[in-house]
Amino acid sequence: MQILITGGAGLLGSRLAAALLQRNTVADARGIPQRISRITLLDVIAAKGFHDPRIHVVAGDISNPDVLRAEITPDTQSIFHLAAIVSGEAEANFDLGMRINLDATRLILERARHNGNCPRIVFTSSVAAFGGALPTQVLDTTPTTPQSSYGTQKVMGELLISDYSRKGFIDGRALRMPTVCVRPGAPNKAASSFASGIIREPLNGIEAVCPVAPGTALWLASPATAIANLIHGHDVDSQLLGASRALNLPGLSTTAGEMAQALERAAGTAAAQRIRWQIDPAIERIVNSWPGDFLTTRANAMGFTRDASFDAIVQGYIDELKAGGA
Amino acid sequence: MQILITGGAGLLGSRLAAALLQRNTVADARGIPQRISRITLLDVIAAKGFHDPRIHVVAGDISNPDVLRAEITPDTQSIFHLAAIVSGEAEANFDLGMRINLDATRLILERARHNGNCPRIVFTSSVAAFGGALPTQVLDTTPTTPQSSYGTQKVMGELLISDYSRKGFIDGRALRMPTVCVRPGAPNKAASSFASGIIREPLNGIEAVCPVAPGTALWLASPATAIANLIHGHDVDSQLLGASRALNLPGLSTTAGEMAQALERAAGTAAAQRIRWQIDPAIERIVNSWPGDFLTTRANAMGFTRDASFDAIVQGYIDELKAGGA
Repeated sequence: MQILITGGAGLLGSRLAAALLQRNTVADARGIPQRISRITLLDVIAAKGFHDPRIHVVAGDISNPDVLRAEITPDTQSIFHLAAIVSGEAEANFDLGMRINLDATRLILERARHNGNCPRIVFTSSVAAFGGALPTQVLDTTPTTPQSSYGTQKVMGELLISDYSRKGFIDGRALRMPTVCVRPGAPNKAASSFASGIIREPLNGIEAVCPVAPGTALWLASPATAIANLIHGHDVDSQLLGASRALNLPGLSTTAGEMAQALERAAGTAAAQRIRWQIDPAIERIVNSWPGDFLTTRANAMGFTRDASFDAIVQGYIDELKAGGA
Repeated sequence: MQILITGGAGLLGSRLAAALLQRNTVADARGIPQRISRITLLDVIAAKGFHDPRIHVVAGDISNPDVLRAEITPDTQSIFHLAAIVSGEAEANFDLGMRINLDATRLILERARHNGNCPRIVFTSSVAAFGGALPTQVLDTTPTTPQSSYGTQKVMGELLISDYSRKGFIDGRALRMPTVCVRPGAPNKAASSFASGIIREPLNGIEAVCPVAPGTALWLASPATAIANLIHGHDVDSQLLGASRALNLPGLSTTAGEMAQALERAAGTAAAQRIRWQIDPAIERIVNSWPGDFLTTRANAMGFTRDASFDAIVQGYIDELKAGGA
């Protein structure tokens, strides 16, 4: 199997590649595990840190059809399309969001269609597919009502994934990912960036701003759970997905205040006091438009997983830090 | 007010223009009636039959940015975007559907955004926004689950309308129209074309094929009701629409068999016997994926209207025929 990962230099892309290398197989269309012969990591910057001969690193723009023509061939049986302009940036730069989140997604689907080999495509959608007046728990049947350009572009991507799958051009699956936390490294332009920052920075002795109120609910998954669910989402039988290829993934519902308490339990009061609570109306508006809790009946039945607790997520990040991996 | 109607040579476009000319005003952003100074009818073919100096006929391709640049100016305060590749054709010619139903819609929105005058844009969506396993009555809260490329493209258009409106680029409203029946003239490539054909052709002494089973439910509106609701949809206060600018319009729920009975009541047994019941699986698949009944609570409260009965719709068409207008 030859696999393409867009956003391959990012946190999820590079960890997904590492997990796939270790696993060595993914399921084919019949559900039979097939050996992975090649993983192409495509991103605007070259992915680093891989020394496996199966890894092929490409720095390129996914909105450039020539790049896609070179990297998506009839031998590309699986695509994990993770690359995106994140929520805060897509809101601030509407045109860039449309070009990457919508146009490039379509170019990838068109390339796959052109090749005629019906590749399996895993598209990462988001809780930002929902918004506005929502039930306490978002259900599998809750209508998508995005309240941000990012969410709008993601839902449009989901619709394309479903229609291209229905037409037999691809075998797609659009996974609505929880906010991934704790992300290592630097903050990004996602409106949800603080969710990692308020744990990561205090653990490193640095102050972090929490731009939303303590009662703000979030739907979270650790990087490890997110990766496991991406691979499971690739392997799951398309018959289980049905006509709408979009799926709400399991997560953990918690609040910013509860996250601070978990940090305090794990690392002490001094760490928790490094969180400065200072509301940013632009970020709060976007984050408050997202659901903070789901009932993911369909995904649970398909075997997708969630983290045990937010304490476990924090401990997992601390363990990574100690191991030098974060 | 200067108004652009795309699809201006079609049934709805030309009747809408006639209705607007007669009405002489549309509401501006403050809800105040403003005199209509110009109506541009843009379509791939030149609209015919207008002799009013306010009418400006343009033959052009809405997927051509140059055409849009010429016809959508900062003086264009209102756009009725009716042009589309219909359901059957969009399913048969995927690329054409994407180009007109999605790309051209986006070009129109971009042109309007570029002009910076926040025009009011009425976009015609469709019952094809829904599909698959549906409740007996589709509610305002029922999720969109298109099962055709046409429906997919329409829902993507709705999402763009809502996001462009939220950003303040336009003041959009996406009206999910019932199947319009009875359409005069020749059959078209809509999967729903038969709904008009099985009334129109027998009244003209011609046999018509009904490609769906008699029990197939349809959600219908007469041309006159469709036009009234398009204008009402333009004039309605955006505050009533909220964040999601898509709205299910009222209609009449009936079945193909009941339509034949109404024809028989209006024109006798001989007319009804000119309907040949012969299922076309491709058409039946698309039509059966659409809902046949809605509870349009929101639109009712906003003052949108429906036809009194299917008998009234048939009689309206017969009256038009007699008056030489159909």
